[in-house]
Amino acid sequence: MARNTQVAADHDAPPITQILARFVATHPARGWSDAVEHEAQRTFLNWVGCATGAATHEAMQAALAGVSMLQPAPQATILGRAEKVDMAGAALLNGISSHTFDFDDTHLKTIIHPAGPVASAALALAEHLGASGRALIDAMVLGIDVACRMGNVMYPEHYDRGWHITGSTGMLGAAAACARLLGLDEQRTAMALGIAASQPVGLREQFGTMTKPFHPGAAARAGLLSALLARHGFTASARALEAPRGFAQVVSTKCAWHEATDELGQRFEISFNTYKPFACGIVIHPSIDACVQLREQGVKADDVERIELKVHSLVLELTGKKEPADGLAAKFSVYHGCAAGLLFGRAGEPEYADAIVTRADVVALRRKVVASVDDAIDEASADVTAVLRDGRRIHVFVEHAIGSLQRPMSDAALQAKFTTQAEPVLGAARTAALIAGCRRLGAMADVRELAALARP
Amino acid sequence: MARNTQVAADHDAPPITQILARFVATHPARGWSDAVEHEAQRTFLNWVGCATGAATHEAMQAALAGVSMLQPAPQATILGRAEKVDMAGAALLNGISSHTFDFDDTHLKTIIHPAGPVASAALALAEHLGASGRALIDAMVLGIDVACRMGNVMYPEHYDRGWHITGSTGMLGAAAACARLLGLDEQRTAMALGIAASQPVGLREQFGTMTKPFHPGAAARAGLLSALLARHGFTASARALEAPRGFAQVVSTKCAWHEATDELGQRFEISFNTYKPFACGIVIHPSIDACVQLREQGVKADDVERIELKVHSLVLELTGKKEPADGLAAKFSVYHGCAAGLLFGRAGEPEYADAIVTRADVVALRRKVVASVDDAIDEASADVTAVLRDGRRIHVFVEHAIGSLQRPMSDAALQAKFTTQAEPVLGAARTAALIAGCRRLGAMADVRELAALARP
Repeated sequence: MARNTQVAADHDAPPITQILARFVATHPARGWSDAVEHEAQRTFLNWVGCATGAATHEAMQAALAGVSMLQPAPQATILGRAEKVDMAGAALLNGISSHTFDFDDTHLKTIIHPAGPVASAALALAEHLGASGRALIDAMVLGIDVACRMGNVMYPEHYDRGWHITGSTGMLGAAAACARLLGLDEQRTAMALGIAASQPVGLREQFGTMTKPFHPGAAARAGLLSALLARHGFTASARALEAPRGFAQVVSTKCAWHEATDELGQRFEISFNTYKPFACGIVIHPSIDACVQLREQGVKADDVERIELKVHSLVLELTGKKEPADGLAAKFSVYHGCAAGLLFGRAGEPEYADAIVTRADVVALRRKVVASVDDAIDEASADVTAVLRDGRRIHVFVEHAIGSLQRPMSDAALQAKFTTQAEPVLGAARTAALIAGCRRLGAMADVRELAALARP
Repeated sequence: MARNTQVAADHDAPPITQILARFVATHPARGWSDAVEHEAQRTFLNWVGCATGAATHEAMQAALAGVSMLQPAPQATILGRAEKVDMAGAALLNGISSHTFDFDDTHLKTIIHPAGPVASAALALAEHLGASGRALIDAMVLGIDVACRMGNVMYPEHYDRGWHITGSTGMLGAAAACARLLGLDEQRTAMALGIAASQPVGLREQFGTMTKPFHPGAAARAGLLSALLARHGFTASARALEAPRGFAQVVSTKCAWHEATDELGQRFEISFNTYKPFACGIVIHPSIDACVQLREQGVKADDVERIELKVHSLVLELTGKKEPADGLAAKFSVYHGCAAGLLFGRAGEPEYADAIVTRADVVALRRKVVASVDDAIDEASADVTAVLRDGRRIHVFVEHAIGSLQRPMSDAALQAKFTTQAEPVLGAARTAALIAGCRRLGAMADVRELAALARP
């Protein structure tokens, strides 16, 4: 029996579904500054590297085996693999792989990882259509803008409630990007956003399982399908995002509508995208960064008596695992992070291999890390002192870690990260070619050229 | 930056993901009474009829055109159509068609339409696997139990918040049914439920658009994919349904856990399934029923001076459209419903054709309906008096409409409803054969036999 219930209607909600649809459908190609365009290239490069690097992970094997039961047509590339699948499957699989190592991009304002859902859908569709690189970049920038702006509308309440915001806004970004690639008009773009709005993906309870990276993949797939349906006249509410029983009000009590529209077409959310230098949760990054700096100042593990680490309480709450038994557990250990930083000068996926995490010198060094809480120190900072056997104290304070908005990774560092990830899968020559391909994507006549470079 | 936020943990939540997974994986085939089995047959028959009847609707044309862009393998039947698509596409499309006319089954305790998501996924997979009819019915009964029990856990708060509960629980039922058909063990069934838990589908804002029927279809597709992934070892949280940041607590503040487990394996929610005799919102049904009864008592439209209708305020609030301009609008007009009941003795999809809604005698009769509110009358009831030109007053009070749990449609009436829907698509002979096929489904060695009967 239908019920007579009250919903707190927000009559002040502007028509953001229509406003965002018009923006996606009509904003000029490359209608932004060189800085935005450069950040788009960095986002794409980082995403391709992450996806390629995890191409043969067991999560990918399982997902590909499942998708293969649908006997998909070979429409689109799975980055780092020889098999092709249909567009929906490629969107899913590339979304999964790009987030498998938690090493992808982060829109820090919302902790959305925007490339996963958006680029995964856009590349799959662009490859099948034979679209230009220019069209692909445009779709990605606009799609990321839609997803992150909707994140801004709802963050943090939506995330606090338990939604994995990457997947629960990503389907909108994917739909927007695919609508753009399909050349849908404003009205059909609104329908694509509307259909996608009914399909938020992702629960935080899934963190630590394969379903976490499934979220951006499933969001990519949902957004792509939404655009395909809208392309053929399928309808949805033209107020699906903002209506009282529409998306934002159903999944969030915070609905800061102005975030969807402020400086639309002038400020691009991809400008605030960041890339992780270290393959672990972002709260550990300042501590690792500090230890890398200690190493650069000549501190050697053998000389260390102890490492005094002062951090915000949140850091130990989330990543206080003292004796991680394997690589997965080590991702939640600031102690391992510090040891890796000091011993290796980096903490990429190889430094989280089980064999490294259990290696005697690594174990010995991380036991020398003495962590204490100081809530006067920001969550984004770390205060580290190496106390040497000879009594010397070497102090490093990191206010903002490398990879933050304040201290972004350099292009060279991003390329090095890419290489570390892609080389084991593609080999050195193909990896270099793929990097070059990503760099000239904007001038590429057909993205199938790029996709081909990503197959071993 | 990760945030340090509090979530109201419910430490009393039993491990319902695991409990439901064990139930789905281990409950004996046809492990229920004859009454439950009979209701399962009725549910399946009604679902096939609804899906077949809407097979060529414009929503289906648009959705099929979109799905066809994926160049799907011909794995499974679209009921009422000659084309085949892959399992995921068939699950989506049959889910859409079965809900297109809002004429499908209703689990009244939660207003879930359970067959849409569950049967659509199960038939597509069963057909591709060449499973037996017995296995298909078992999967459907168990899947519907999971979806409706999770609905019981959260209803009404979850629905009131704006979720279209059919799609936002249906992916769990679909995953359960598909896990059962794939023969997954308890552990992998739990993973299937867990993956599905991250993909609730459906906003009430979409009502009145094609995205409403998209919800059961997308839920079917999501649940099917979840089972395929779990089959190959993809992992999810084993507490995905009940954890503090798991499904139920993220999408509902009401979490009556006992509803998931009370009398599990003894009480089957499919027992509480009902079927609509009239192709419109259920609040109109008592009024139509009363007018059909007036007709059966000899009241003729020409003799009517006016029809006095007394109903609960909710009825006019939801369906008070006095002058509907077309068939879609007429679905929200208790006035049109009354006119159809008195003129035709029924209100199926044909009585909601635009040409009928605008026909002079129909318009004239519905203008004679004078509705008034009486909140002493239950939402499920209607008080109708025909005042004739000769001054006579014929009174009918309907406490429970035909199609309710208290006055279920007879098997013969269900068959007649099926015929009305399927004959225009399949013709009389094929329709009769399909009905016979549905009736002997439990003894059918391979459901492909049934699927073949549903293609024109």
